[in-house]
Amino acid sequence: MSYVARAMPNKYCIHMVTDAQSAGGAEQAMFGTKIMALADRLAQWSEVPDGLTCTYLSPAHCSVAAEIRDLMRQAGLTADIDAIANVVGRHAADDPRAPALILASHYDTVRNAGKYDGRLGVLVALVVAEHLRRLGRKLPFHLDVIAFSEEEGVRFASSFLGSSAVAGRFDPSLLERRDAEGVTLAAAMGAAGLDRAGIPALARPGKALAGYLEVHIEQGPVLLEEGLPVGIVSAIAGTVRCMVTISGTAGHAGTVPMGRRHDAAAAAAEVVLYVEQRCAQAPTLVGTVGQLAVPNGAINIIPGRCELTLDIRAADDATRDAAVLDVMREIGRIAEKRGVVIESREVQRTAAVRCSPRLQSLLSDAVTRAGVDPRHLPSGAGHDAMMFDGVTDTAMLFVRCGNGGVSHSPLEIITAEDADVAARVVLDTVLRLAKAS
Amino acid sequence: MSYVARAMPNKYCIHMVTDAQSAGGAEQAMFGTKIMALADRLAQWSEVPDGLTCTYLSPAHCSVAAEIRDLMRQAGLTADIDAIANVVGRHAADDPRAPALILASHYDTVRNAGKYDGRLGVLVALVVAEHLRRLGRKLPFHLDVIAFSEEEGVRFASSFLGSSAVAGRFDPSLLERRDAEGVTLAAAMGAAGLDRAGIPALARPGKALAGYLEVHIEQGPVLLEEGLPVGIVSAIAGTVRCMVTISGTAGHAGTVPMGRRHDAAAAAAEVVLYVEQRCAQAPTLVGTVGQLAVPNGAINIIPGRCELTLDIRAADDATRDAAVLDVMREIGRIAEKRGVVIESREVQRTAAVRCSPRLQSLLSDAVTRAGVDPRHLPSGAGHDAMMFDGVTDTAMLFVRCGNGGVSHSPLEIITAEDADVAARVVLDTVLRLAKAS
Repeated sequence: MSYVARAMPNKYCIHMVTDAQSAGGAEQAMFGTKIMALADRLAQWSEVPDGLTCTYLSPAHCSVAAEIRDLMRQAGLTADIDAIANVVGRHAADDPRAPALILASHYDTVRNAGKYDGRLGVLVALVVAEHLRRLGRKLPFHLDVIAFSEEEGVRFASSFLGSSAVAGRFDPSLLERRDAEGVTLAAAMGAAGLDRAGIPALARPGKALAGYLEVHIEQGPVLLEEGLPVGIVSAIAGTVRCMVTISGTAGHAGTVPMGRRHDAAAAAAEVVLYVEQRCAQAPTLVGTVGQLAVPNGAINIIPGRCELTLDIRAADDATRDAAVLDVMREIGRIAEKRGVVIESREVQRTAAVRCSPRLQSLLSDAVTRAGVDPRHLPSGAGHDAMMFDGVTDTAMLFVRCGNGGVSHSPLEIITAEDADVAARVVLDTVLRLAKAS
Repeated sequence: MSYVARAMPNKYCIHMVTDAQSAGGAEQAMFGTKIMALADRLAQWSEVPDGLTCTYLSPAHCSVAAEIRDLMRQAGLTADIDAIANVVGRHAADDPRAPALILASHYDTVRNAGKYDGRLGVLVALVVAEHLRRLGRKLPFHLDVIAFSEEEGVRFASSFLGSSAVAGRFDPSLLERRDAEGVTLAAAMGAAGLDRAGIPALARPGKALAGYLEVHIEQGPVLLEEGLPVGIVSAIAGTVRCMVTISGTAGHAGTVPMGRRHDAAAAAAEVVLYVEQRCAQAPTLVGTVGQLAVPNGAINIIPGRCELTLDIRAADDATRDAAVLDVMREIGRIAEKRGVVIESREVQRTAAVRCSPRLQSLLSDAVTRAGVDPRHLPSGAGHDAMMFDGVTDTAMLFVRCGNGGVSHSPLEIITAEDADVAARVVLDTVLRLAKAS
């Protein structure tokens, strides 16, 4: 196949030439070129003058939703914004009772974000569906392209608002949660013209689904360092997060001999290094102390208090829980040895999700056909795909992240070529799924 | 000797009964009772409604100066406030050309201070001078009681303003230094009615001095843990202070494998633990990381930056400098090993001061005569006495600090009995010095 994308004022017109499997050469990158151009286009809507910030139901967010809906309609899909601000487009099967294959990711962003986290998956799904639509290629399932409204959890400190609704896991108590300005989620939805009474009806029962497939930027350096444009996600790590406070004894930095100290920061240092060492002992395990502070510390005062956070993840819960247990045991030993009090409060625990072996296998075949070594790797970050675990077969494809793998940053980058590989792999996978159905 | 102290409205009237060496029993604690009452009295002047804060030239500070001057005059001394707000009282020798023995400490405080840091030394000097004055005991030297106006460095971030002037070490460039409100030291002095042109004349040449003796609360737990009311300071530690910034690579806590990280906080943790371990290797050596922070850290982000402070002290500069050198070498190793950049900026370096062997010996004899084992210990904290190093023979006596040795805190406490021992030791030492002169 090949693609001709022409940028026009406020419009992108795409002429699809032939089938995905038949194309070759320079024309192949046209999926990628289109994806890059649309990512730039969506990034023009931001809450801040410099950089990209697009949090749930901000004016920028609503504008992006409208734009994605219009892009879907231009692509020939039926498309609407649902009760929780997901944008849902459909390339319908002939049989209205057919199940739906969901291709999705999110369009909200963190503060000062990159252009690809979330949106890459939406745009890959869009160009693939558009391609099939324009080919006139009917499938034995509806192909639903969904741009979830909320995944990052920035505004209401609760992630997956959009995908949890579609997966039938939306927690109605969140409607009373307030943002930093004191506005409840319910009030924000009302102000945006959304009808929250419609949320329960968004839930897709498993029997109405043929599967869930999400493309996402890797947000790490693995594919980059291994020279691979894409990789197949084997599992999405579950996370345990804790807030740790260490209470020692403050004292004058000059007058308390070393042997008589109960230094909270020194105890914290031992915790940091133990977490690092312990979490290096299993391949998919990672452990991070992201926040570390001596509140009101002074250069000449022995720290009497130190606060830190723990974030421990692994592709399987047993591996992670063993590490968490060891860290807690070590914290006990450190407290005992140093005569300090260490309190650890667990603030989050999510289970790891294994991706569907069947969909992984299909993706792996498609990756191989695209001329790429099929690399399976876990996702350390959480994704909308987690919401569909237990609902339907779920899979993810990662795309190589440039700049050393940096994400949640304006430095986040991908190439058009890699985006193109991702789109071709998804198209191939969708077609193989259709054949197998 | 014995003492009768009666609290009267705005006055303390002291009747001294007999000589310091001849008294015994319950009456002996009268020096201590008086000192405790006067410390409470001075603590009533504060910049804040709750707790004690008395920084240079605040209204509270000026009130304390006037009160100390009045107390000195009531004690029979000639007394005035000098050009830098030191309060200087004199029990004069018959010969106006006699040298002066200075008994001194400071009357300013840190924020939310204890009542004894600095003021204890002023009040011990006051009651001893008052005792000699009322005895009519003439000495072969002037006995100068000085309450230095500034030692803590709170308002202008420069310590020893008062004592540096008397020691002839005042740095005139400090007059242009500004406080947090932008007021220069010169302007603050002018507003308080001080004539800064008079500062140079405050300098006492060494030949005009018979010595310098300062009593101070220990600010640490050594005497408390050893069951000793007082101790003789062997040396005042010199300090090296550094600001250390570590630049690593920020990243997503879930997506960057442990082996690919350049975690600034983990590097900081290694620095903290090395400082602790290295500074435990010599008896008077101490090392502290008092400030430690990951700026803008987030629970799910690998720290890209970490900032910490170093404060390393020892009773002799060689011991300290060897430790600083080892810490800097280790910092280099940590940076190399972890692929992070660590910058260390030295912001302070003061030389250690050895106390006069002659005065230490006299203090030791007096301590022994007071029925206390003479314990020599270094001071890890800086004191006004440092300013007189090289100017005249300098010595310090530490008084046991209760509550585990806590200082720079409202919990700072001493007992009247210990204050009394300190006053008797000073009185004894002054009398022995007089005999030896």
